[in-house]
Amino acid sequence: MKIYDSKTAPNPRRVRIFLAEKGVQVPYEEVDIVNAVNRSPEFRRKNPMGTVPVLELDDGTCIAESVAICRYFEELYPTPPLMGVDARDKAIVEMWQRRMEFELLWPIANAFRHRHEFFKGRIPQVPEFAEVSRQTAERNLSWLNEVLADRPFIAGERYTIADITALCAIDFGRVSKIRIQPEQTHLARWYEAVSTRPSAKA
Amino acid sequence: MKIYDSKTAPNPRRVRIFLAEKGVQVPYEEVDIVNAVNRSPEFRRKNPMGTVPVLELDDGTCIAESVAICRYFEELYPTPPLMGVDARDKAIVEMWQRRMEFELLWPIANAFRHRHEFFKGRIPQVPEFAEVSRQTAERNLSWLNEVLADRPFIAGERYTIADITALCAIDFGRVSKIRIQPEQTHLARWYEAVSTRPSAKA
Repeated sequence: MKIYDSKTAPNPRRVRIFLAEKGVQVPYEEVDIVNAVNRSPEFRRKNPMGTVPVLELDDGTCIAESVAICRYFEELYPTPPLMGVDARDKAIVEMWQRRMEFELLWPIANAFRHRHEFFKGRIPQVPEFAEVSRQTAERNLSWLNEVLADRPFIAGERYTIADITALCAIDFGRVSKIRIQPEQTHLARWYEAVSTRPSAKA
Repeated sequence: MKIYDSKTAPNPRRVRIFLAEKGVQVPYEEVDIVNAVNRSPEFRRKNPMGTVPVLELDDGTCIAESVAICRYFEELYPTPPLMGVDARDKAIVEMWQRRMEFELLWPIANAFRHRHEFFKGRIPQVPEFAEVSRQTAERNLSWLNEVLADRPFIAGERYTIADITALCAIDFGRVSKIRIQPEQTHLARWYEAVSTRPSAKA
């Protein structure tokens, strides 16, 4: 078993933090995304989408998509729970995970992808969409600050995969100058708590 | 318990089909999205994102996000399984569900949202992004046709939530004239199979 990884991309970090929280060790193999090795025909046989991370099982099965990889390990190692503990809780965590992904990580990623040199020629860039995405991300940071006014973590009392997604999103925002604002004190308190956990260095 | 629904939007249909496959009956309440009732302060107390569907539990908890709602019912009613049966299978189904969502439903939805009159004033529209999204969707239909060359359903041998997402995406493509092409015979065979299941009428 191994995970095709990239130390500079936000999605592989989600899996590394998740596994660090679980205390599960899996060998990583760095993929040279700068030279687009992830877009080679060989890598696309593992993941036709050409993205990292990819979990390769011993039987050769390849699991792409960060959250799907996390699901695999959550099922095998349910403690500590990072994706909820019963039907209601699992649904709440999944809702928040998806909100952090679609309302934060995607706008932040699109603010980068649709403008930055790195993606020139890799995707059809629409700079106007980058700007709309940047504004969406900033508005949603303000909303998330309010969400965190009454709870320690994004999905409630417990640290979950939703916190991991949000942390990776916010840290990736730096390259596009999307940052927590001084008045967003609840968000800053949460950020301090999650970014100082040992897993954040994974 | 009830589900805030819309008969014309693609996401609520995902949940309706899922529940029809499970044989689970939940009361639905139609939300007038044409008159933006989903964007009212009252509805946003149930779901700050202002989207449908939303599952409201008897304790007042509101679960938004189609896949999170499906997760709730999958946990309570595991038979027939629509989200996988063990760690490996659950991860594979989640991977394919996400691919159908991000590679098909989102491009198809964005081809509509960023161009159509309905979303004027509701989101900051970028028509150039609508066109890029349309091209992405058409390219991915061609890819999905190849995927289906060697298997009956999208995630393998069994009908799953990935098929539901893809069916709802493709049917929603009609409004943007994104359609299965005559040469996409594997996709057409799959579409015939999934769209004639009784659940497709839900």
